[in-house]
Amino acid sequence: MKIMILMMIGDIVGRPGRTILREKLPLLRKEYEVDFVIANGENAAGGNGITQKIAQELFISGIDFLTMGNHIWDNKDVFNFIEEEARMVRPANYPSGTPGRGYQVIKIESGISIGIINISGRTFMNALDCPFRTADAIIDKIKNSTSIVIVDFHAEATSEKIAMGWYLDGRATLVAGTHTHVQTADERILPNGTAYITDLGMTGPMNSILGIEKETVIKKFISQLPVRFEVAKGPSQINGIIVEIDEQTGKAQKIQRMDIKEI
Amino acid sequence: MKIMILMMIGDIVGRPGRTILREKLPLLRKEYEVDFVIANGENAAGGNGITQKIAQELFISGIDFLTMGNHIWDNKDVFNFIEEEARMVRPANYPSGTPGRGYQVIKIESGISIGIINISGRTFMNALDCPFRTADAIIDKIKNSTSIVIVDFHAEATSEKIAMGWYLDGRATLVAGTHTHVQTADERILPNGTAYITDLGMTGPMNSILGIEKETVIKKFISQLPVRFEVAKGPSQINGIIVEIDEQTGKAQKIQRMDIKEI
Amino acid sequence: MKIMILMMIGDIVGRPGRTILREKLPLLRKEYEVDFVIANGENAAGGNGITQKIAQELFISGIDFLTMGNHIWDNKDVFNFIEEEARMVRPANYPSGTPGRGYQVIKIESGISIGIINISGRTFMNALDCPFRTADAIIDKIKNSTSIVIVDFHAEATSEKIAMGWYLDGRATLVAGTHTHVQTADERILPNGTAYITDLGMTGPMNSILGIEKETVIKKFISQLPVRFEVAKGPSQINGIIVEIDEQTGKAQKIQRMDIKEI
Amino acid sequence: MKIMILMMIGDIVGRPGRTILREKLPLLRKEYEVDFVIANGENAAGGNGITQKIAQELFISGIDFLTMGNHIWDNKDVFNFIEEEARMVRPANYPSGTPGRGYQVIKIESGISIGIINISGRTFMNALDCPFRTADAIIDKIKNSTSIVIVDFHAEATSEKIAMGWYLDGRATLVAGTHTHVQTADERILPNGTAYITDLGMTGPMNSILGIEKETVIKKFISQLPVRFEVAKGPSQINGIIVEIDEQTGKAQKIQRMDIKEI
Ligand SMILES: [Fe+2]
Ligand SMILES: [Fe+2]
Ligand SMILES: [Fe+2]
Ligand SMILES: [Fe+2]
Ligand SMILES: [Fe+2]
Ligand SMILES: [Fe+2]
Ligand SMILES: [Fe+2]
Ligand SMILES: [Fe+2]
Repeated sequence: MKIMILMMIGDIVGRPGRTILREKLPLLRKEYEVDFVIANGENAAGGNGITQKIAQELFISGIDFLTMGNHIWDNKDVFNFIEEEARMVRPANYPSGTPGRGYQVIKIESGISIGIINISGRTFMNALDCPFRTADAIIDKIKNSTSIVIVDFHAEATSEKIAMGWYLDGRATLVAGTHTHVQTADERILPNGTAYITDLGMTGPMNSILGIEKETVIKKFISQLPVRFEVAKGPSQINGIIVEIDEQTGKAQKIQRMDIKEI
Repeated sequence: MKIMILMMIGDIVGRPGRTILREKLPLLRKEYEVDFVIANGENAAGGNGITQKIAQELFISGIDFLTMGNHIWDNKDVFNFIEEEARMVRPANYPSGTPGRGYQVIKIESGISIGIINISGRTFMNALDCPFRTADAIIDKIKNSTSIVIVDFHAEATSEKIAMGWYLDGRATLVAGTHTHVQTADERILPNGTAYITDLGMTGPMNSILGIEKETVIKKFISQLPVRFEVAKGPSQINGIIVEIDEQTGKAQKIQRMDIKEI
Repeated sequence: MKIMILMMIGDIVGRPGRTILREKLPLLRKEYEVDFVIANGENAAGGNGITQKIAQELFISGIDFLTMGNHIWDNKDVFNFIEEEARMVRPANYPSGTPGRGYQVIKIESGISIGIINISGRTFMNALDCPFRTADAIIDKIKNSTSIVIVDFHAEATSEKIAMGWYLDGRATLVAGTHTHVQTADERILPNGTAYITDLGMTGPMNSILGIEKETVIKKFISQLPVRFEVAKGPSQINGIIVEIDEQTGKAQKIQRMDIKEI
Repeated sequence: MKIMILMMIGDIVGRPGRTILREKLPLLRKEYEVDFVIANGENAAGGNGITQKIAQELFISGIDFLTMGNHIWDNKDVFNFIEEEARMVRPANYPSGTPGRGYQVIKIESGISIGIINISGRTFMNALDCPFRTADAIIDKIKNSTSIVIVDFHAEATSEKIAMGWYLDGRATLVAGTHTHVQTADERILPNGTAYITDLGMTGPMNSILGIEKETVIKKFISQLPVRFEVAKGPSQINGIIVEIDEQTGKAQKIQRMDIKEI
């Protein structure tokens, strides 16, 4: 059995998130003998969206592919490069006609193909197309091109995320939740071979609220007044998972959480 | 330093949740040398609310105290005993005049007093009073009666839960989130001595969606038709934490996750 | 120019709503020389949904066609007859596979065809398919069979409703909002011939809150406790509109509000 | 019986709203023999909030008093003058410590006192304090200083607005809803003398969606992409009501809708 090792990293928040990746990702790749690294980049640019320059910076740091989420459009620069950038997906259930792509099949260095799908939840989120039907349609389309199917399900409600895990069990290699910025401890291999975790967590400043300065978020909750959110300072963390995949069948063999903290 | 050991258990779902506790809690209490066990019981009665009989059953199984949440009123039997039952709290930020109590200070066997507060979040939840001001007011009231203050913050949004953790750091012994039914991996001791975790997780059937039969929840998401939710069958889990507390200062010394699965 | 006169009636609430229609609708039909009566029946059965018996009762009272809304599934009896009942539509943007139909083209007594479409909004409502694309697709399908297109847009937010009015201006004969149970005073003919009103209002007890006993609704808001909603008693009202339509072109010539109160 | 005539004007949107008021308000005041004019100004500055300069402009145009809503903080200039400006209120159920005042009792030219209260709803809106308890507390405080109590209830849901009307019937002179920007046709005098209307409507460009360019709002709904909202152009309307009040008792004698359109 030939094993592919995938690293998947939770929402990267601002410069601190990018910096800790630049510093630690090369070693982590070696340490875990990683074949491919996917990261959620929806908060990479100062907490809000992404720019072409920042996407390049992340690719140079050792990330191979970016998924996004509800913050996709926050930084207008995204419209300048989303069509051309083949290493990035945005939620596939945005309406037809939306710039960018919702999934991608790519061939990695080892010659293996991987399908990567980004989907957004609807509970407590934007009114997009049905995430479950979107997943069905894409998997149907790509299943002959690749046995490895990675799903970043960017969603708020745990019920919707777990439902997606069970729904795709046996059809996806991995269903990994993002968006809540808190890593969950429920990683497992579902009965039909799909690795699942409700949320990958957040890559960025650890003494913060979802990567943002905690004082301003608290002030917002208490005063209900508008506040200016800034990315927090101080030590950072990398959150994510390592998944071992049977290259032949696309089944996940092992899923393990990764939570690297700066001292 | 005299250490008190607290076990706190995530939302108990239906008969499967109660059964696994009856079977395993006595041994777990011994194994961890637990002084006091708090559990969230909002889903104890068939997934919806609680009854007096079920509360008694849980006390007999080794739970010392029950916290609740948004499902508090789902089973009407609660109105029959909530006023008399001193070992149960419901979210304190329900409006004044609401049956039951939002916090309680009790003396445990060792002679130590513990304050237990239940608060509900407001983001994506019911329109209740400000959770932060509610916490302030109660802690002010009880801080002379007890140095140990346990907060069950029953909330949906990770931002609101983490904000409460930081907000009460140094004033509470523990801020433990409940409601999402998925255990998070972010347990830590905050700088001023408050133990924190975003969610304790769920005690009930593990091959389920939040304790409910997965087929029906998936059907609901896909069809948007009404479905009848039943508690799932099959092996169960106990989710929770063990917290070591300095009895003198009320500061948390250690927090560790507990995730017991039936084989 | 041959004119067709359409009456469209806002959400019928419970027995009081049905009773006032039985008593007054025959005379109103004569008085306004009405050719066709459409009514929203989503609250006809005790405030929640509809039954086959109640649908029959409404047809006998002089209603020719029923539209529905988010309460469509509240009474399970609907599943027994929705497939067979050709005089009823439910929101068309429920996912494919949903029982019932989202639109219907029918030939009325005068030999004229009318297309009737029911669509649900998404803002503050269920996660359904895009209402605008749904409208596009249906109108495309039926425009060769009928020049008269009536849209019941069952939605909460005024922005979404007005957007639909402008969006369909020139393609629909009438875009009439329902769901808020309060008649709006913004009826008008849009520049390209579409009659528009944000909400038709409610047919049922006038000293109530949306047709429900006011004391219980107030209690709910104040206590946040569960309450049992009952349809209110006392005098009723009929809310709706009269629209004059050019049979040839399907353009609306005139829209006028109707607000009949029991003394 | 001495009658006071109150005009109350719905949400003023941007320059078009201000312009039509400057042109028509002086004549309308004369025509209706108005004693006092209250207007909702939350969208007066380009659709978002208010500035000191714009408040002054509105006072000069003949508005005596301004109420606000959820857009109160959109334009930061409000923080520069809200404390000093005695002729403006913001929702009273913002938490204590919020800049500005939630109610005001003022003596008008004729020597009569009027209490003006601004409250925000919570359904589909911000998490503020209970609007009903807030109303109770303020009315208790001011009822000895004035028999005339005007409430601008800035809320989304018709249920919450009508509930407030019935709740204050006999204690307020007028409960007028704002926020949805669509005038409702349900104006009435409730049994105990409170005038009520669910929404006053909008003062601004009539060929628009809530005052905003319709193309951009439609684009937003269809594409779910961020769009830049601009106040619409073209003819405007003034929406509001005229209420006749018994100065002695503070009871409303008559409420009539006002809907002035530019040709
Ligand atoms: Fe994120
Ligand atoms: Fe996100
Ligand atoms: Fe729960
Ligand atoms: Fe809950
Ligand atoms: Fe309705
Ligand atoms: Fe409805
Ligand atoms: Fe407004
Ligand atoms: Fe507003």
